[in-house]
Amino acid sequence: MSISMYSASVPVFVHMLEGVALWLDKAEAHAAAKKFDPSVYLTARLAPDMLPFKNQIQIASDAAKFGVARLAGVEAPKFEDSEASIADLRERIRRTIEFVRSVPAAQIDGTEDKDVVVPRRAGPATLKGEFYLKHYVLPNFFFHVTTTYALLRHNGVELGKGDYLRAFPA
Amino acid sequence: MSISMYSASVPVFVHMLEGVALWLDKAEAHAAAKKFDPSVYLTARLAPDMLPFKNQIQIASDAAKFGVARLAGVEAPKFEDSEASIADLRERIRRTIEFVRSVPAAQIDGTEDKDVVVPRRAGPATLKGEFYLKHYVLPNFFFHVTTTYALLRHNGVELGKGDYLRAFPA
Repeated sequence: MSISMYSASVPVFVHMLEGVALWLDKAEAHAAAKKFDPSVYLTARLAPDMLPFKNQIQIASDAAKFGVARLAGVEAPKFEDSEASIADLRERIRRTIEFVRSVPAAQIDGTEDKDVVVPRRAGPATLKGEFYLKHYVLPNFFFHVTTTYALLRHNGVELGKGDYLRAFPA
Repeated sequence: MSISMYSASVPVFVHMLEGVALWLDKAEAHAAAKKFDPSVYLTARLAPDMLPFKNQIQIASDAAKFGVARLAGVEAPKFEDSEASIADLRERIRRTIEFVRSVPAAQIDGTEDKDVVVPRRAGPATLKGEFYLKHYVLPNFFFHVTTTYALLRHNGVELGKGDYLRAFPA
């Protein structure tokens, strides 16, 4: 077996996003125990000029969604970024997993040398599929997943590295 | 060209660690502008029961070092975790890059099915090389790199996503 574009993308996104959904359960339980409205998490920030919790999850979702869509050459589903509750964020995660799982592996495998156009404020850039995945999509995805984790930890939710990696059977 | 175990590991570690070294320059410049001792960053935490800044960089270094060493089947250099300044952390990064670059690509390529033994508090676990890289080493590495970034942002250092990704020419 050899490492493939599909195996390095979709299963990683699914595994990590399923983890984020579990963190949301813990965040709700923490809010219930401390008797605060769990929607206060949505606007939490690590710095005044960093994006809040809600956006971290939206962008992690977009990183996975657009990464898969652009590599496979399929249309990405449109998400409205209108999440206003933990339940909404959980649904966003569910729809993201559903989409990335819907793309056949054969459409992503073999895209190492494919030209992928990445929209940017400075104008679109073209990256090769493999570079796009390893140096743009995955680092960006992990950035927003980890910042989601950091925000929950910063707000008292009891998570540990095991909740992040989930690499070993319990 | 096909995605390989080497191309999915060493160049990613080097690129991100070179980025962390650049963030340290900005952190020192910020401390100088605000007239505080840059060594205060070393003990900064996002939560009282999270590891501080210094450890985030040490563990990012270890994630890259042990990931490469275990896949390649070579001895990892021993680092003493005695860093007490930004300069020491920069040297730790430099030595980590030097080591991972020293391992020939041919020793990492083809390790997809290799059994890798991962020490854990609960006892060692054996993972296949490809799973180890995609679901343990890379997520763990990005976790500590991103937490390093988050700690600097939380402490006022002006970094942006471009400083994290560095995926496009300036």
